Amino acid sequence: MASAPNPELRSAKSHQAILDATFELAVSKGYGKLTIEAIAAKAGVGKQTIYRWWPSKGAIALEAINDQIGSTTDFPDTGDIAADLKTQINGLSRMLAGDVGCVYRGVIAEAQNDPKLMRMVRETFVEPRAEKGAVRLESAIRAGQIRDDLSVLAMTNMLYGPVYVRFLLGVGDVADSADLVDPILDGLRPRP
Amino acid sequence: MASAPNPELRSAKSHQAILDATFELAVSKGYGKLTIEAIAAKAGVGKQTIYRWWPSKGAIALEAINDQIGSTTDFPDTGDIAADLKTQINGLSRMLAGDVGCVYRGVIAEAQNDPKLMRMVRETFVEPRAEKGAVRLESAIRAGQIRDDLSVLAMTNMLYGPVYVRFLLGVGDVADSADLVDPILDGLRPRP
Repeated sequence: MASAPNPELRSAKSHQAILDATFELAVSKGYGKLTIEAIAAKAGVGKQTIYRWWPSKGAIALEAINDQIGSTTDFPDTGDIAADLKTQINGLSRMLAGDVGCVYRGVIAEAQNDPKLMRMVRETFVEPRAEKGAVRLESAIRAGQIRDDLSVLAMTNMLYGPVYVRFLLGVGDVADSADLVDPILDGLRPRP
Repeated sequence: MASAPNPELRSAKSHQAILDATFELAVSKGYGKLTIEAIAAKAGVGKQTIYRWWPSKGAIALEAINDQIGSTTDFPDTGDIAADLKTQINGLSRMLAGDVGCVYRGVIAEAQNDPKLMRMVRETFVEPRAEKGAVRLESAIRAGQIRDDLSVLAMTNMLYGPVYVRFLLGVGDVADSADLVDPILDGLRPRP
């Protein structure tokens, strides 16, 4: 047993090699030029291995992006909602302004003409973060720091819309997005 | 002179025929499948005529979009900034939720990998509207209806970011974007 190869470990290594190869190729060649063939060659696996785990290059890219981000976009809870949102939006914006943003931009572009991929963008990138954000916002509502008469979706649109419009249209610098947290929060404070 | 063809009129007719053909083809076939050849054939003009007026299909599509929108996204000035922003954002959102949105989505997708086209999106679509919006916001600042300590760009990002994140990522319904004007404006009211 000691000398036999461990299939689970080998599998985990291949999985990670595929994510790394996808991210590196998407950054160096551009997401549009990324192919499953090139990923397989760079990761040293067969194409069938890739297709067994992912339905499309968009799906691999999204997992590779999440793998790169790690815990950078997690929501802290220090008790100060403004500070915590700034920390999270700074982390997200820094990612969007760098290599992660290059790859994510390519996925979002492709998803504009591919509703299945767009659903995947929402389900694997946007919504998991929105759910963690909702937990943080609800804790701020309970603490009386923000109003309770707006949906969490509305608040999330208000907080992250400016980040995305800067990221995707280049109107304003995405890296400075946390600057908008205070005026947005001014509108989210409990009404007198 | 009376019976001779009028070159200016013929030219204006060809120009409009190209815009109409571009919009109709982009809606029916999808922007991604739009070609200069197909536009020329449908508009009954030569490809050289098109290339004389526009550098790329993205440029024609942007002009075709603006032509379709007409005055729908103009900013009224009734003296009530909340009402006026809702009117404008309703007009824009209705456009984005319909055929104009289908075409614009395709242009924005292509522009993610084409910085020249992205600049054209900003210069022909976003900025002309942002400039008109700035005039309206500045009049509201002078009227004491909104705060004077934020840049107009920051306010514009706050007001239109949510529209775009709904439009491009489908998180929330773009057609309902005017619902967010009140809470966003709550953050833009003069500070006590």
